[in-house]
Amino acid sequence: MTLSSPFASALEEVLRPDQISVAEEDLQTFAIDQGPVTDYQEPLAVVWAETIAEVQSVVRLAAEYTVPLVTRGAGTGVSGGAHATVGSVVLNLTRMNKILEINAADEIARVEPGVINGDLNAVAAEHGLMFAPDPASYKISTIGGNIATNAGGLRCAKYGVTRDAVLALDVVLADGTLIRTGHRTFKGVAGYDLTSLFVGSEGTLGVVVGATVRLKYLPTIVRTLAVFFPSVQAAAAGVLALGTARVQPCILELLDGPSLTELDFRNGSNLSTRGTALLLIQFDGLAAEQEEALAATALEALGGTISREDPAEAQRLVDLRRNNRGLDVDAQNRVGEDVAVPRSQLVHYITALEEMARRHGVDLQVIAHAGDGNLHPTFSVPTFEPAGIAALNAALDESIDKALELGGTITGEHGIGQYKLRWLALEQSAEVLAIQRHIKALFDPQGILNPGKAIPA
Amino acid sequence: MTLSSPFASALEEVLRPDQISVAEEDLQTFAIDQGPVTDYQEPLAVVWAETIAEVQSVVRLAAEYTVPLVTRGAGTGVSGGAHATVGSVVLNLTRMNKILEINAADEIARVEPGVINGDLNAVAAEHGLMFAPDPASYKISTIGGNIATNAGGLRCAKYGVTRDAVLALDVVLADGTLIRTGHRTFKGVAGYDLTSLFVGSEGTLGVVVGATVRLKYLPTIVRTLAVFFPSVQAAAAGVLALGTARVQPCILELLDGPSLTELDFRNGSNLSTRGTALLLIQFDGLAAEQEEALAATALEALGGTISREDPAEAQRLVDLRRNNRGLDVDAQNRVGEDVAVPRSQLVHYITALEEMARRHGVDLQVIAHAGDGNLHPTFSVPTFEPAGIAALNAALDESIDKALELGGTITGEHGIGQYKLRWLALEQSAEVLAIQRHIKALFDPQGILNPGKAIPA
Repeated sequence: MTLSSPFASALEEVLRPDQISVAEEDLQTFAIDQGPVTDYQEPLAVVWAETIAEVQSVVRLAAEYTVPLVTRGAGTGVSGGAHATVGSVVLNLTRMNKILEINAADEIARVEPGVINGDLNAVAAEHGLMFAPDPASYKISTIGGNIATNAGGLRCAKYGVTRDAVLALDVVLADGTLIRTGHRTFKGVAGYDLTSLFVGSEGTLGVVVGATVRLKYLPTIVRTLAVFFPSVQAAAAGVLALGTARVQPCILELLDGPSLTELDFRNGSNLSTRGTALLLIQFDGLAAEQEEALAATALEALGGTISREDPAEAQRLVDLRRNNRGLDVDAQNRVGEDVAVPRSQLVHYITALEEMARRHGVDLQVIAHAGDGNLHPTFSVPTFEPAGIAALNAALDESIDKALELGGTITGEHGIGQYKLRWLALEQSAEVLAIQRHIKALFDPQGILNPGKAIPA
Repeated sequence: MTLSSPFASALEEVLRPDQISVAEEDLQTFAIDQGPVTDYQEPLAVVWAETIAEVQSVVRLAAEYTVPLVTRGAGTGVSGGAHATVGSVVLNLTRMNKILEINAADEIARVEPGVINGDLNAVAAEHGLMFAPDPASYKISTIGGNIATNAGGLRCAKYGVTRDAVLALDVVLADGTLIRTGHRTFKGVAGYDLTSLFVGSEGTLGVVVGATVRLKYLPTIVRTLAVFFPSVQAAAAGVLALGTARVQPCILELLDGPSLTELDFRNGSNLSTRGTALLLIQFDGLAAEQEEALAATALEALGGTISREDPAEAQRLVDLRRNNRGLDVDAQNRVGEDVAVPRSQLVHYITALEEMARRHGVDLQVIAHAGDGNLHPTFSVPTFEPAGIAALNAALDESIDKALELGGTITGEHGIGQYKLRWLALEQSAEVLAIQRHIKALFDPQGILNPGKAIPA
């Protein structure tokens, strides 16, 4: 396969033929991630860098020929942050997949960006450690992608998000310069926090080619509670009751009735016969049993029905929850949202969501990382007719407005990407958006790094 | 009191007379913080803003007349980040000391920057909550100052540093514009992480005039262990043993022999008769007792002598430790350092420190937030003679080199300020320093916000 341009020829001088593809199949595969597609564009080519030096070469050529680079890992993002844009080349880092170091005494790991989250966790587990961020895609998503989106997951209620796990980054800047930010130590305050600036920047400020991450202790004692409630509002109230009981679940997921019905349909389970809403709660660590007991008392007082799961069944429920979103690739008529609200507003927000879904005539399922107030409402319509799509979008827009009205954010963990740009100005002021544009211009004056993502152009 | 300049006249139009001082006593008091003084400068004036609008007015005037502003709270910083510089005006925010909101359900607080850390904790405690960052100065230092330096403390081994506790900031930019960064929710990934960029930036990018912080559960069960060791190396090995035992202390302090002797001298205690080095360990939460037992087993196996303190005695020991640094204002012949190393290097680093102190003929005390690998070695000489000061500085420089050689950082929690600028280029590359200068220029093109601090000019 060859590209016919001076840029292509230059690429072919720094990469082997099997590191460059213009095959239609590849262009299609790597044109998009799992986010909604509003402007489908195929890249000019896909390149697989295997070393930092190769990334530097590709970036330098992109700068020289002013070719936009869309850096990606597994493409499991759901905001279109890795969608190809006009005239772009996709820089695929999945072959940079070496775990460079696990240091159990220092509780850190150094990894290349293409290392799969689950692979790092498997190796860390041999040392009794874990990489805490666990997005639903953890079995296939890369650490580099987790960093690009500041990914969350189920465990962040207790263990924090990706940013909290990243100590240092190796980054190739837009001119090909390699820098190292942060430190190998747990603490460090030398200079501005560039590490946090790159985390969550969706490949728009630099290309992350290495990361030093902090590992946490892999818990050996785990207790899981499934608590069914007569209403989703009662379940949401249960989230606050757990806070008042001063217990800290590592997992605290809320699933509404339609979500339970869909899980049952897919998995042959009977969850929806057991209640209208479910709190799936996991405690870990030495106090797991005590916390479980405190939680059960608090939730029974609220009308919850406790189902103490046996370990295998419990793990199955958590797996069902973990995986139920990964299967739903968004489409024009089905969009999963990712808002967050202060936890005290969960009840009000869910009630408002149900009301707006009814009013717009769209279907709604709500699942939430409830411990963080991070909700994934999924709106859908059983049609591609314009009227249905319009109703869906009206409900979506209203759900965003409502989240902001309650003190929330338009994205708890998925990122702005391409799809949520339309809402960013509702949350952030013109001055804040201007600062971000200036930062972008500082790092990427030519605008070649994932243009049109994360912040408005 | 009046200033005689157009800038002074303009200030007098926006502030009351009792908000401006040029009294020599005030100029001296607010010329410095608790960091080493290498270039004593008195400010032109000290102003006390009481509202955000007043901060905006002062900043606008500073911009109009190109007058450097040194923003400060209680001035408890120990890196000279709040030292006045030539021709500067000190902007004192200690009167902006209102706790605007405590929301127990959302586990957050909104505060003005001059709120004292201890005052916020006292109010939060009424709700069973706490603001986790606890620098030694917590009884007098301000949240704004904690944010400016990304302060650490004793509890961050378990609860994280100030950055981990800050959700959103209100910031007055160098042109007087007020912006809001971050979100009221626990999670949020909209746009670049400007909040983390301001945290730890030492007043060089903007003036923090408000903060939304996350509160943690105030533990009701606390267990404290004092474990004496025959050598400081054995105590340092104990830190790793606790990690291997998979227990997570909220406090894990290491004190060497000279530190124990000094504590005894000051407090009439008998710590130094009980061992050559001390690990002071606190566990909190529901599993505190189990963790204490696991820790005791692990440390006895290493030769540690367990002294289970009664609650009052335990709190006294922790208080002694908390306060022993606050009393030591650095001087030319006594400098407390703040390096951090990967925990596996603690033993090697302390051994190297002792060797270099001997070789340079300077006195050394080592205390460490050992759970984070964050050490505060204090070098001193009993003289102000040039030869002694030269030996002190040679030991200091060598201690920095060694920390970096072991994978460490030149500042774990105190910040660069003015004093540590000389070492920053040893840790960070020219490219990284250049990026920081560009960010500084972006936020503060005139260089009026705390110039000469945090990053090299």
